[in-house]
Amino acid sequence: MAGEVVLLDFWSSMFAMRVRLALAEKGIKYESKEQDLSNKSPLLLEMNPINKQVPVLIHNGKPVCESLIIVQYIDEVWNDKSPLLPSDPYQRAQARFWADFVDKKVSVAAKNVWSTKGEEQEAGKKEFLETLKIMEGELGDKPYFGGETFGYVDLSLITFYSWFHAYEVLGNINIEAECPKIIAWAKRCMQKEAVAKTLPDQKKVYEFVVQLRKMFVSE
Amino acid sequence: MAGEVVLLDFWSSMFAMRVRLALAEKGIKYESKEQDLSNKSPLLLEMNPINKQVPVLIHNGKPVCESLIIVQYIDEVWNDKSPLLPSDPYQRAQARFWADFVDKKVSVAAKNVWSTKGEEQEAGKKEFLETLKIMEGELGDKPYFGGETFGYVDLSLITFYSWFHAYEVLGNINIEAECPKIIAWAKRCMQKEAVAKTLPDQKKVYEFVVQLRKMFVSE
Repeated sequence: MAGEVVLLDFWSSMFAMRVRLALAEKGIKYESKEQDLSNKSPLLLEMNPINKQVPVLIHNGKPVCESLIIVQYIDEVWNDKSPLLPSDPYQRAQARFWADFVDKKVSVAAKNVWSTKGEEQEAGKKEFLETLKIMEGELGDKPYFGGETFGYVDLSLITFYSWFHAYEVLGNINIEAECPKIIAWAKRCMQKEAVAKTLPDQKKVYEFVVQLRKMFVSE
Repeated sequence: MAGEVVLLDFWSSMFAMRVRLALAEKGIKYESKEQDLSNKSPLLLEMNPINKQVPVLIHNGKPVCESLIIVQYIDEVWNDKSPLLPSDPYQRAQARFWADFVDKKVSVAAKNVWSTKGEEQEAGKKEFLETLKIMEGELGDKPYFGGETFGYVDLSLITFYSWFHAYEVLGNINIEAECPKIIAWAKRCMQKEAVAKTLPDQKKVYEFVVQLRKMFVSE
């Protein structure tokens, strides 16, 4: 029994996508409530008064906030199907470490690729590619970060793939030339139905990011 | 059987203290290897090549990094005594949310109290007290963030208490006047033997932070 599951959502948020992807992997039915982030709803402010951000998972009326915490919650509550975190405590700690690295390093650098210009953007591009190369090193020759199966770290990083075209065009970078293993991994993930159905089209995200960039940068 | 447990440690790090406190709560014997952070050891660089920071827990030769991830690892491996995270998935998600808030908000603001000056310091002081007030709101009338017992959020925040004297003197603030419930909670925690034994003396930390401040601020 899933109970009532509602997601305070935003289509192009890679953090909201993580939750949609976890719910898809688990086959959980839910209601997505798309949020207007320029005019936050009373429901969003009530359910996430501290950070006031999407995603928020509302399960039987009770909110869970922060994408990685929500994904762990989903994995713990619906533990009968498609485990995301490894069952071994050491492997689980390693998975948490790499998902945390995606949040603290990859995500921050990725934002600087499209939301800055000049020296700051150059530094952001360099750091973004460096962090992806570190992820490539962690991936090694495994098909997934989770080993033979798609898991928590895969889910944490793959949602950024929907922004890759925007990073490439706005940052004038070629991710495949620099990080071929990451692109091969991403294409492998996209062959999974849950991933392909959850991630929005890269061109549509690009159009969105072009507009968003205008709020950050005067060219 | 604890196996071989080594902690790459630093006495005044509130993050390393969290791990020492979790190990103390669980009654686990371990070897603390104090690190020279101005001249990082080959062992630290080998065990935490990505972040190059303490704490690192080395369990039977294998490293776990990032304090909150280490504490969860300890709680999962030594699960027969003094549970730190709640057993209920929803309560566990809430505990993770508040520990994350301590890391992302309280900790960042706290650093600005002693490592900056002028307007930046004023903003840091204001934000630090605001974040503590948010924590007070979450504590409410409970004896501990964990409810009737000391838990994960308590452990995540209490280690900052050893720095409170430094924040008060260097920031010219009175934390008790602003956040009396936090101070009452901290004193309650200090009555626990594991906490009292783990946290260094506030005056000793203050002397350390005075020296550290000279590396950040030219007065």
